[in-house]
Amino acid sequence: MIKLEDMGSFHIGGKEIHVNNQQEERRHFTPGADPLIINPNGYHEVEQMYVQYFIPEREKGRYPLIFMHGGAMTGVAYENTPDGREGWVNYFIKKGWSIYNTDAVGRGRSGWNGYADSFKEAPIHLPKHDPFERFRIGDGKASYHKNPENMKVLPGSQFPIKSYDQFMKQLVPRWINNEKETVSAYLSLLEKTGPSIILAHSQGGLFAIEMALNHPSLVKGIILIEPTISVDIKHPDAFTNTPILLVYGDYIKPGNRWYKHMQNTLNSLKVLKKYNSKIDMIDLTKKGIFGNSHLPMLDLNSIAVANIIQEWLEKRQLYR
Amino acid sequence: MIKLEDMGSFHIGGKEIHVNNQQEERRHFTPGADPLIINPNGYHEVEQMYVQYFIPEREKGRYPLIFMHGGAMTGVAYENTPDGREGWVNYFIKKGWSIYNTDAVGRGRSGWNGYADSFKEAPIHLPKHDPFERFRIGDGKASYHKNPENMKVLPGSQFPIKSYDQFMKQLVPRWINNEKETVSAYLSLLEKTGPSIILAHSQGGLFAIEMALNHPSLVKGIILIEPTISVDIKHPDAFTNTPILLVYGDYIKPGNRWYKHMQNTLNSLKVLKKYNSKIDMIDLTKKGIFGNSHLPMLDLNSIAVANIIQEWLEKRQLYR
Repeated sequence: MIKLEDMGSFHIGGKEIHVNNQQEERRHFTPGADPLIINPNGYHEVEQMYVQYFIPEREKGRYPLIFMHGGAMTGVAYENTPDGREGWVNYFIKKGWSIYNTDAVGRGRSGWNGYADSFKEAPIHLPKHDPFERFRIGDGKASYHKNPENMKVLPGSQFPIKSYDQFMKQLVPRWINNEKETVSAYLSLLEKTGPSIILAHSQGGLFAIEMALNHPSLVKGIILIEPTISVDIKHPDAFTNTPILLVYGDYIKPGNRWYKHMQNTLNSLKVLKKYNSKIDMIDLTKKGIFGNSHLPMLDLNSIAVANIIQEWLEKRQLYR
Repeated sequence: MIKLEDMGSFHIGGKEIHVNNQQEERRHFTPGADPLIINPNGYHEVEQMYVQYFIPEREKGRYPLIFMHGGAMTGVAYENTPDGREGWVNYFIKKGWSIYNTDAVGRGRSGWNGYADSFKEAPIHLPKHDPFERFRIGDGKASYHKNPENMKVLPGSQFPIKSYDQFMKQLVPRWINNEKETVSAYLSLLEKTGPSIILAHSQGGLFAIEMALNHPSLVKGIILIEPTISVDIKHPDAFTNTPILLVYGDYIKPGNRWYKHMQNTLNSLKVLKKYNSKIDMIDLTKKGIFGNSHLPMLDLNSIAVANIIQEWLEKRQLYR
């Protein structure tokens, strides 16, 4: 049972651009009806961001949670698992958290517009083998196979492997180099929600750090699920009062890509330790939780991982 | 207060394609990290559809409602209004309806894939003047102006005109000529939900008709909000047991585009009358509801229009 005080959605951020010198298009929208002439010249709204929110009947979190997904994904990553179990949205609402679940700029319901500079380059459409081999589901290169029985899955993997195609249906195109526009929309969201806790996966981690740098007083906690952060943090004092949790799954070994991402992230965040005594790192395997891919919100043990996050939120007194 | 037995989402439909002979791409995903080599050759999932569902604590509808949006839109059209009021999703959940709110193929969270034939042509990105002048918000051609004070709005318009830019943020690119793939995904949804009632806006009306033609026993009612239907219905007997409601807003006058759409739709559906005595057409102005644009779910009087639909559902004994 889910009891909500309110739920809804909105778009936030973005800007207006003016398009010139494009040809009119004569397009046939409706079979059997007259064709339409579309004149694209004029004003367009671009780079906005879609947010869906849920406010529980009895709020127990001290601040709302802002969910930020990883590259090629949308907020759907937190709504369900490919094999049809409940996602983290339901889990955290039931715990009494208000949730703002986002689609980053250009992904999913945020839309995109080919006339904006940020969308002029062709986006990446990931083929099935790529996340399988890169996100620690399969055992590295050439481990994907069309037939699930012939896939070389990592031993003990908790990914719902029979639903791998269903996972691939969740993915959306990814444009490169629109970080600035994405951060801008996230900052607008934070100004709207007020003080919040950020839960960010993978690419989202970078945006979470930027939000705290820009609005230190509005970011009350940061949960980073295998973030990919390689930046020079210029104002580490912005994080003085922000508890941070880093969560890492299984199969991260010296030499592999995720080990490098982890080292880069830890190097980037090292400077914060001088200013912040509330940084925790959880290696799930050290908690007895094994088999996690880069997508712990989708793995078969996703609720065990959510429990770890909930415990940390309680420990850091962000929960009533 | 919204009390839900369950809520969640899934992707449905679509197919697998194989991509050949494309160049590998070397792309820099993460600032400061190693570039990634993406090999797009291989299998891709394409043409799937995103669906979010809500099951109320006490279900009072005899069947679930499937919400289908119009062209250039997504399920967001039913979630909120541009000026921040509750959308029809909340309204109908509170009445006790189960809801499946969809993003048609290629829109929003359904994603899209440039390697599939259905997405090879460039999509349409609507400029701000186009829906304003075409969707009966402004008074026809050249009625849009960047400054809301200089817009020529139709007299008595119920569109939340100060939030027009916010409406434009909801729109997404539209590909032409993927009707077949869209209908296919909607049929998969209907097979999953079982007997259902369809509420379809504009372009969605065409898909609703195709669903009833393909699965007459699974479509228990059809609500068409200003549909754009110009087809020859070859098996009108498929609609024998399906109550149909047509809803039209204000400013539809002989000679204008929406009058033609209405005439085309009524001509297409005329053949059904021999087989079906439960076809109702509501001209909202005849009910004393004035000022509606082509987007009554967003207009200031959106709840008055929802009430009309709810009354019809009760009259047709689709509600307990």
